[in-house]
Amino acid sequence: MDSTVLAYIAGFLDGDGSIFFQIVPRKDYKQKFQIRSSIAFYQKTEFAEILEWLKEIFGAGYIRHRKTGISDYTIVDSKEVKKILSLLQPYVKLKKKQVELGLEIFNKLENKKSNKDFLDICKLVDKFKQLNYSKKRTITYDTVTKSLPL
Amino acid sequence: MDSTVLAYIAGFLDGDGSIFFQIVPRKDYKQKFQIRSSIAFYQKTEFAEILEWLKEIFGAGYIRHRKTGISDYTIVDSKEVKKILSLLQPYVKLKKKQVELGLEIFNKLENKKSNKDFLDICKLVDKFKQLNYSKKRTITYDTVTKSLPL
Repeated sequence: MDSTVLAYIAGFLDGDGSIFFQIVPRKDYKQKFQIRSSIAFYQKTEFAEILEWLKEIFGAGYIRHRKTGISDYTIVDSKEVKKILSLLQPYVKLKKKQVELGLEIFNKLENKKSNKDFLDICKLVDKFKQLNYSKKRTITYDTVTKSLPL
Repeated sequence: MDSTVLAYIAGFLDGDGSIFFQIVPRKDYKQKFQIRSSIAFYQKTEFAEILEWLKEIFGAGYIRHRKTGISDYTIVDSKEVKKILSLLQPYVKLKKKQVELGLEIFNKLENKKSNKDFLDICKLVDKFKQLNYSKKRTITYDTVTKSLPL
């Protein structure tokens, strides 16, 4: 794949895309939970052609056109997400930490041997979420507790 | 300049940037109006470092941090805007038409000899504005006139 195409996609992802990791309940899974990952690109439905172009390049995922006039192209298959993160890693800037941590999560998932290993991965998923959300904006119990005298 | 850096910036601009052309009144100008161009990149103030990086690369423009928590890096100097459009032209996708038309406007501005030439350029600026705004969303006199029986 051409390096300028990958660099372009990395810039597009940094400008207006997202990488997510989630812990979702799964009764039939050994650890009762699954680590779900996704990469999403957004664009006004009118210009969704760029999302079709991305989908052709990656050969995975699906495009949704929302009623709000925004479309998204989302890839959730772990193998594909890992591949895309590896391809974009050399070029991504704003989401560099997310890409590195995401790849670390995938590597640990492939080598996990125990529940302890899985729990460690869950901690990395929590850490990943913190990278996605502005420290300034996220108000937690901790924030409130520090401002309210009891 | 490295082609992957330019491709990255093109992707970033396509994802979350803008190119504008405006006609502004100027008493001291021969044609009484000036064609003003600008390129803008946006990012949450928390991640404004990427804007500093862009500013270093282009060596022009200024960064503003708004109260809304959004920062922008804007270049308005025509010579610089033209240079940046030329550099990004091979890599840009979503804004390909804007970049082409923008460069056409700059070329015509450099070669204008009469008021007629200037008026033709103003028409191109109007055309440029139409590229920036969604056809579906822009309701004009024409739209209303077609739906209202008289």
